[in-house]
Amino acid sequence: MDVQKAIVSKTKLGNFFEDFCLGMEIAHATPRTVSSGDQALYTALYGPRFALFSSDEFARSLGLERSPVDDFLAFHVVFGKTVSDISLNAIANLGYAEGIFGVPLYPGDTITTTSKVIGLKENSSGKTGVVYVRSTGCNQRGEEVLSYVRWVMVRKRSSGSPSPKTIVPDLKKVVSVEDFILPGKLTMSGFDNTLAGSSFRWDDYHVGEKIVHVDGVTIEEAEHQMATRLYQNTAKVHFNNHTESQGRFGKRLIYGGHVISLARSLSFNGMENAVKIMAINGGAHVAPTFAGDTIYAWSEILEKIDFPERNDLGALRVRLIAVKNNNCESTPLMDEDGRYHSDVVLDFDYTVLMPK
Amino acid sequence: MDVQKAIVSKTKLGNFFEDFCLGMEIAHATPRTVSSGDQALYTALYGPRFALFSSDEFARSLGLERSPVDDFLAFHVVFGKTVSDISLNAIANLGYAEGIFGVPLYPGDTITTTSKVIGLKENSSGKTGVVYVRSTGCNQRGEEVLSYVRWVMVRKRSSGSPSPKTIVPDLKKVVSVEDFILPGKLTMSGFDNTLAGSSFRWDDYHVGEKIVHVDGVTIEEAEHQMATRLYQNTAKVHFNNHTESQGRFGKRLIYGGHVISLARSLSFNGMENAVKIMAINGGAHVAPTFAGDTIYAWSEILEKIDFPERNDLGALRVRLIAVKNNNCESTPLMDEDGRYHSDVVLDFDYTVLMPK
Amino acid sequence: MDVQKAIVSKTKLGNFFEDFCLGMEIAHATPRTVSSGDQALYTALYGPRFALFSSDEFARSLGLERSPVDDFLAFHVVFGKTVSDISLNAIANLGYAEGIFGVPLYPGDTITTTSKVIGLKENSSGKTGVVYVRSTGCNQRGEEVLSYVRWVMVRKRSSGSPSPKTIVPDLKKVVSVEDFILPGKLTMSGFDNTLAGSSFRWDDYHVGEKIVHVDGVTIEEAEHQMATRLYQNTAKVHFNNHTESQGRFGKRLIYGGHVISLARSLSFNGMENAVKIMAINGGAHVAPTFAGDTIYAWSEILEKIDFPERNDLGALRVRLIAVKNNNCESTPLMDEDGRYHSDVVLDFDYTVLMPK
Repeated sequence: MDVQKAIVSKTKLGNFFEDFCLGMEIAHATPRTVSSGDQALYTALYGPRFALFSSDEFARSLGLERSPVDDFLAFHVVFGKTVSDISLNAIANLGYAEGIFGVPLYPGDTITTTSKVIGLKENSSGKTGVVYVRSTGCNQRGEEVLSYVRWVMVRKRSSGSPSPKTIVPDLKKVVSVEDFILPGKLTMSGFDNTLAGSSFRWDDYHVGEKIVHVDGVTIEEAEHQMATRLYQNTAKVHFNNHTESQGRFGKRLIYGGHVISLARSLSFNGMENAVKIMAINGGAHVAPTFAGDTIYAWSEILEKIDFPERNDLGALRVRLIAVKNNNCESTPLMDEDGRYHSDVVLDFDYTVLMPK
Repeated sequence: MDVQKAIVSKTKLGNFFEDFCLGMEIAHATPRTVSSGDQALYTALYGPRFALFSSDEFARSLGLERSPVDDFLAFHVVFGKTVSDISLNAIANLGYAEGIFGVPLYPGDTITTTSKVIGLKENSSGKTGVVYVRSTGCNQRGEEVLSYVRWVMVRKRSSGSPSPKTIVPDLKKVVSVEDFILPGKLTMSGFDNTLAGSSFRWDDYHVGEKIVHVDGVTIEEAEHQMATRLYQNTAKVHFNNHTESQGRFGKRLIYGGHVISLARSLSFNGMENAVKIMAINGGAHVAPTFAGDTIYAWSEILEKIDFPERNDLGALRVRLIAVKNNNCESTPLMDEDGRYHSDVVLDFDYTVLMPK
Repeated sequence: MDVQKAIVSKTKLGNFFEDFCLGMEIAHATPRTVSSGDQALYTALYGPRFALFSSDEFARSLGLERSPVDDFLAFHVVFGKTVSDISLNAIANLGYAEGIFGVPLYPGDTITTTSKVIGLKENSSGKTGVVYVRSTGCNQRGEEVLSYVRWVMVRKRSSGSPSPKTIVPDLKKVVSVEDFILPGKLTMSGFDNTLAGSSFRWDDYHVGEKIVHVDGVTIEEAEHQMATRLYQNTAKVHFNNHTESQGRFGKRLIYGGHVISLARSLSFNGMENAVKIMAINGGAHVAPTFAGDTIYAWSEILEKIDFPERNDLGALRVRLIAVKNNNCESTPLMDEDGRYHSDVVLDFDYTVLMPK
């Protein structure tokens, strides 16, 4: 019987809502050294063409030592670390805010992630609650690579357990310009439009402008599984068809971040010079995606940010929308009842640097 | 309305036949640093076993600094760059000629591609035309890695637009020996048959000899999509099942280069010592392939090329044929009417170095 | 006719039972330099989270120069080299024994494999026989990375050929402690439980303890094909649906090693600190797996090994069982008739280091 007890205790079943308390700090397992192999896989999985992440020579022309790995590869690796502690029993990944990219993540760098619980709110059902965490990924020198807040709906272990005091953090709707961390040596004064793929620069984009990114890509099971494992994200719903075929959707669910990366890569066509992401202002996976779905995307320019001391670059705040199995032109963002159109799967708000 | 105009102008829809003119030079976007990660993916996608590209030690035994990436990985990367400018509106990729491999492409090298329009011919329908381009990929030192001609059938924007003067370039049927670029330090005097996998060397092959490569490999959607994205090739027909399921074939079409790499990898069995490709003399994708197809291949020795000043190596001109879903032994190249047998998908003519 | 003869002789059809003789030594083709790209693919294919193989910094904290590639990636590469000489005509891969891991395999190292025939036994049918080989993979300095014995059932070319003398090697049931090769500089005195993912160390595990690893993963065709090609393993049954759909199982068969790696990766949940494999004591692929199958795993602690001179680490001998499409809790290892339960696919016995 001793042995049976050991079985229960060694295997992790993930935290439930009751296991979180305000201010709790979690150091996540498995630091991760990223490599040019990870970037190659990222390219194979999404087909990004932004020159900064594709060419060491181009990166050097902007003042960096070489190409960093893609911003969203960094995001997914940081996110992946948090899953087994934060969202293994999550029902839904509800939103993102206050995401700030710090120093670039280079091949050879090792990233370690920690999270802090910054909010808790039990749902009225008494069966679930919302957990807010700020997660931070640092490199081997302790420099912040990415910090962001996300909130997830997590199951309670027991509906009878007492409710925690409700604390909903006061999150900024938009990351402040003063919180941006511009890579020290980055300069766009020698930015080469031809190599980057477009002559449209910061001045050419207008608030309210909508850019439909033309192409669509169909997702295969092997692709999203390989991607999600690359990030060491172990959420069960992405991998186990034996149980998921009997589950909520009758099939495996695709990691929401996979759709972010597909949409960002599609956005190259029309936003070629949107090279380096500064901030994730917000984001929601508004509907699930499954293998076989075809993803399309459009962008809307929400804001133009000028840095008075920089005449080589500015920033754009962009709303990136992904739609499935439907033409972007014929898909409204919202239905008449004010809810997302049923084909919209992602509503993502980020800020990106662009040469002036 | 200003904003609406911006939408149209920022997104690229690719060039149409009218957009090309003779002598036009195009610098393609997104330089690409290749890495050992790309080579690992290439291995996972095709399973090549040629020792030169698999082992740094073997490469050093031939006088090189380390293993270059596979010749066809270099080809696909150069090709991929050209797609968004040349063949986004292509109906068919008709042929290749005058392909010359230059300096080896090593992990860490950055490749940049340019193309020049060298021929134009409108089709009698008035709806399409053939564009001939010479594309050249150079490394970060400006050294040519690969130069080749291809011609594609491209849609006209409007059947009413005027026809250009017909110019069909005079292309060599076979790359001349004097145009070969032998890697400077390459020597096969210490070539190890055992490590390479065969004792058959240049002297053992005969003009007219046909080598059936035994194995067959079935293609999966996830594989060809990952391959094609790795090369940053964005041709729509390979990725979008939402539209392609309503299109010409009712499904996604596989990038022709994927079949070249599969056939070349299959050719290891029987041509183990065919280590370094010198030239692509010609090639045609004679029928489309789709996920689920199983590819087989055979080679025919067309020519033996002796370099008088070299007693360590010679070259073979090889016709590499890929067939789908049919035994090579029972598949003739041509039907009785003189047209390709319906199961033949690739007819490719290349020249390769082999130890003497 | 000369030309036709050449066709037959150049293409390898693999060895048949008659082609092996006791003491025969085979140097396998295609040395292989492993890279961080291979490790990235390994991560994408299996999702391992053991810190030693994920983080260069963690590896350095244990005294190594950087992260080696995963132990089973080394195993698969060594195994893959042997296929075209040993098991191309195999009906079944029957077992493993006496597997000893030597020096760690680092990105940049080149592995070369040789095998020696150590046993032969014709089956009573006269149509097949069992071949026992010891295969050894060495790095570019000639240091052993892995040595192991496997035995396979191979077809005879002709049932009429004479039987060899039966020699069944006397294999150890368990690799002896004195045969272990502990990496010279490896120390676990500074082992960080938090980064590794668990506070359970060697002292916390008990002989007889069974750990059910909770999660299940569904295998896709593209995944096992990419994995098997990454290892340059060319066994036909894994790749050719054109013939396999007419074959024994009506579909492609998954490389048994793919299941070993999936099970080992699943075992992270409950055995997070089982960082470095010392030995493969035995193993059998007791039933075939196919795309669409979902793999689960459990471990049973068979033995605890204490190294008197080391107070930083010990070893555990572990029986790793993989099951398909069935809950581990409800799947017995053996049926009432003493045969493996029909859902059990792997019975694998290995020894692994763990911090004390």
